[in-house]
Amino acid sequence: MAKELTKRSENYSQWYNDLVVKADLAENSAVRGSMVIKPYGFAIWEKMQSVLDGMFKATGHQNAYFPLFIPKSFFSKEADHVEGFAKECAVVTHYRLKNDEKTGKVVVDPDAKLEEELIVRPTSETIIWDTYSRWVQSYRDLPLLINQWANVVRWEMRTRLFLRTAEFLWQEGHTAHATEQEAIEEAEKMMNVYADFVEGWLAVPVMKGVKSPNERFAGAVETYCIEAMMQDGKALQAGTSHFLGQNFAKAFDVQFLNKENKLEYVWATSWGVSTRLIGALIMSHSDDQGLVLPPKLAPIQVVIVPIYRKPEQLAAITEKADEIIKVLKAKGISVKFDDRDTYKPGYKFAEWEMKGVPVRLAMGPRDLENGTVEVARRDTLEKETLQMTGIAEKIEHLLDKIQDNIFQKALSFREDMTTSADTWEEFVEKIEKGGFVWAHWDGTPETEQKIKEKTKATIRLIPIDKEKEAGKCIFSGEPSEQRVVFARSY
Amino acid sequence: MAKELTKRSENYSQWYNDLVVKADLAENSAVRGSMVIKPYGFAIWEKMQSVLDGMFKATGHQNAYFPLFIPKSFFSKEADHVEGFAKECAVVTHYRLKNDEKTGKVVVDPDAKLEEELIVRPTSETIIWDTYSRWVQSYRDLPLLINQWANVVRWEMRTRLFLRTAEFLWQEGHTAHATEQEAIEEAEKMMNVYADFVEGWLAVPVMKGVKSPNERFAGAVETYCIEAMMQDGKALQAGTSHFLGQNFAKAFDVQFLNKENKLEYVWATSWGVSTRLIGALIMSHSDDQGLVLPPKLAPIQVVIVPIYRKPEQLAAITEKADEIIKVLKAKGISVKFDDRDTYKPGYKFAEWEMKGVPVRLAMGPRDLENGTVEVARRDTLEKETLQMTGIAEKIEHLLDKIQDNIFQKALSFREDMTTSADTWEEFVEKIEKGGFVWAHWDGTPETEQKIKEKTKATIRLIPIDKEKEAGKCIFSGEPSEQRVVFARSY
Repeated sequence: MAKELTKRSENYSQWYNDLVVKADLAENSAVRGSMVIKPYGFAIWEKMQSVLDGMFKATGHQNAYFPLFIPKSFFSKEADHVEGFAKECAVVTHYRLKNDEKTGKVVVDPDAKLEEELIVRPTSETIIWDTYSRWVQSYRDLPLLINQWANVVRWEMRTRLFLRTAEFLWQEGHTAHATEQEAIEEAEKMMNVYADFVEGWLAVPVMKGVKSPNERFAGAVETYCIEAMMQDGKALQAGTSHFLGQNFAKAFDVQFLNKENKLEYVWATSWGVSTRLIGALIMSHSDDQGLVLPPKLAPIQVVIVPIYRKPEQLAAITEKADEIIKVLKAKGISVKFDDRDTYKPGYKFAEWEMKGVPVRLAMGPRDLENGTVEVARRDTLEKETLQMTGIAEKIEHLLDKIQDNIFQKALSFREDMTTSADTWEEFVEKIEKGGFVWAHWDGTPETEQKIKEKTKATIRLIPIDKEKEAGKCIFSGEPSEQRVVFARSY
Repeated sequence: MAKELTKRSENYSQWYNDLVVKADLAENSAVRGSMVIKPYGFAIWEKMQSVLDGMFKATGHQNAYFPLFIPKSFFSKEADHVEGFAKECAVVTHYRLKNDEKTGKVVVDPDAKLEEELIVRPTSETIIWDTYSRWVQSYRDLPLLINQWANVVRWEMRTRLFLRTAEFLWQEGHTAHATEQEAIEEAEKMMNVYADFVEGWLAVPVMKGVKSPNERFAGAVETYCIEAMMQDGKALQAGTSHFLGQNFAKAFDVQFLNKENKLEYVWATSWGVSTRLIGALIMSHSDDQGLVLPPKLAPIQVVIVPIYRKPEQLAAITEKADEIIKVLKAKGISVKFDDRDTYKPGYKFAEWEMKGVPVRLAMGPRDLENGTVEVARRDTLEKETLQMTGIAEKIEHLLDKIQDNIFQKALSFREDMTTSADTWEEFVEKIEKGGFVWAHWDGTPETEQKIKEKTKATIRLIPIDKEKEAGKCIFSGEPSEQRVVFARSY
């Protein structure tokens, strides 16, 4: 691990790219825009999946699986949706290859052209609502509370590992309800589930609210979102939950007989988070030494590095390490004993720092004599020598402290980076510095669009739980009911 | 649930199709050959995934994720592999749709044609070995023990829910080793993991062995497999594990520096099981009343149906049911209390029978008086009235008994359906009756092919742990070293 990272202050974007590769999280593949998620990066995703899946099930949802391919015609059924999604996507046109007799190469068989092209799902509302049209007849079939873990493809032109890739992994919830109110409550509930997850596990503070019409999901009536602040002052949308009204029910003719025996269209929501969360995690906490992982999501929470010269020293340390591993595992703490004889301790220290392991223990012959162990925490890079007595409790406590500390640090940063502006000049200046800027907006898409053109900032969210405060739009001077949050974003 | 199943004796194939739909496991989608896996069916898959994933991790494997798309040229790199896989597959040729100005319809944008077509992965050896070429430099990088949970697409012409679908879910392990011996051991180990899983959890007995060259995976040196016997006398391949030699290492130039600092090609394995296992599960145990699920994989292990006329009776039963639920959950047994007031008990009984819930409890006012509960087991359809005392232990024991019983039943059936043949006439007659037939074979692909043409039977496996016994090929009369297992198959 002699290879150093680019410093954040030098080039934040390069720092991120370096880090993703050097911490062994992911890499670009031979397919443009598609990444390979390496075992260490995938282990973080698995932990996220496991926690989220539990939260979805605790709120009454079940998993199912719907087809990867969507008939092209399905996209035309919901007018806004087709504008938003049917454009940059992967299109399957043929179902067979053959050997070209002249060249000996493998070519697409022109005789195997599909009658109707298939789209690799960019999101599954259309195929799922086509399915729901067969599943829903009566109020007794509602609510349908279904989630899917899947891969999706959006043909992005400029891609970045985890943040924006052509193929990514996600979950998409798709629910069907008998009433508008119930669907709205579901959409809000899932925004709150996401917020709890991102704050409680990723240790990333988020703001909650709804999107402006410009930023709304294609086909949604309302998009609820959570927004996080990255260390470079740019916002990142970490999850969205959409109230879809009856748009998809009407497009796919999903009606149900209510208790009064009358036909009604069903009300819908959809909501998703993706492997993009790993990008948010990395950019929120990591530093110039590498990754900083929240203990609750770290694939390895504790690493033990033996310091020795002679084999008998290693044997003695190993014996002690085994004891520690046993008591840590009994507490559900994941621990790795790095006894590779092919690398020196200094190399190992740098490697586990790069990989963001929250706690590192080092043990040498003197520690054995003294009944001590050196404990280093990744978040502050502080080291101290502790007595072995009660080591499991000490480490358990330390992991909690680290989880809390990185959340508090990210929260302080977010608070420092959140300001408000009352004039256009002030607004432009603050946006230029980065961070969230609370400002009045006249509520029109035109003004939002012009602000975006002039400053590259968009409305990240409109608050839903904040007291309203009248004012004047920083751009147009027209009346405004409340401040909204602007930022440049990923 | 008034709708009855087709009887197995009338039309086995129709029985299967009916059952998959009526037990709410899966259905066909709007996309030809692609199924929707419904929540109840997916819950079985989730249980399978969870157990298998634990077994893979216990044997040292890690999960990762590789791209869905594979550049067309990758398939040409391994000569046998391209013959086997690059034919019936979904081909992405374009990356954009647009609105046709004349018709107003959504059409493929001819300007967005890919330079090189992308294949939706039918299996991932090529993209993974392209990746491994960047990951493997030294013996210190080996072994690589990686698994992927993913969707794959093979453009099958005749599809059947779970058994053969264009898109299916699976896991694919891809490992890289420094020595031939280690790779062979890995391939055998994973065959054994599959056998333990299918016998221990699905309660489906399997035979282990290797495939004949005709039936080998395209690109493999040896294919290890497990084969199960379905109730209609046809065999079903339940899992395969391939020793790939150095074929993919050579195709993608994956070499490593060994300890003597010499360059060598890496040795490989790959292995997979898929949602097809759900088909095997269904066809092994289910009956004319519906699904029979092994308790270890049943999404709901126990269902409680209250029998009542008056609301106060329901209230009293609910109270008692809550106690049972509590003690069952404490033992890790999943239980559902079916208190829907929209259906009668008889309807509920039939529904849970159709869905294969292993144990059904029914409780009425008289049971409350007597301190009893009616217990029905799905496998034998037997009912008995039990005292409530120690009910959790009784049910726990019953679930074990059911798991064991359905395995033993399937094993007896498989044994009854396993015969041997010494002459061609005997062979033809026995194959016609169904089941596994042990017979001598001269070892040539030509003979195997001719036997297939005449009887539709193929060699399901060549045993690896059986004593050899010389004889004469039932077809050609040429000398044979050992009997192999023939059957008609799915």
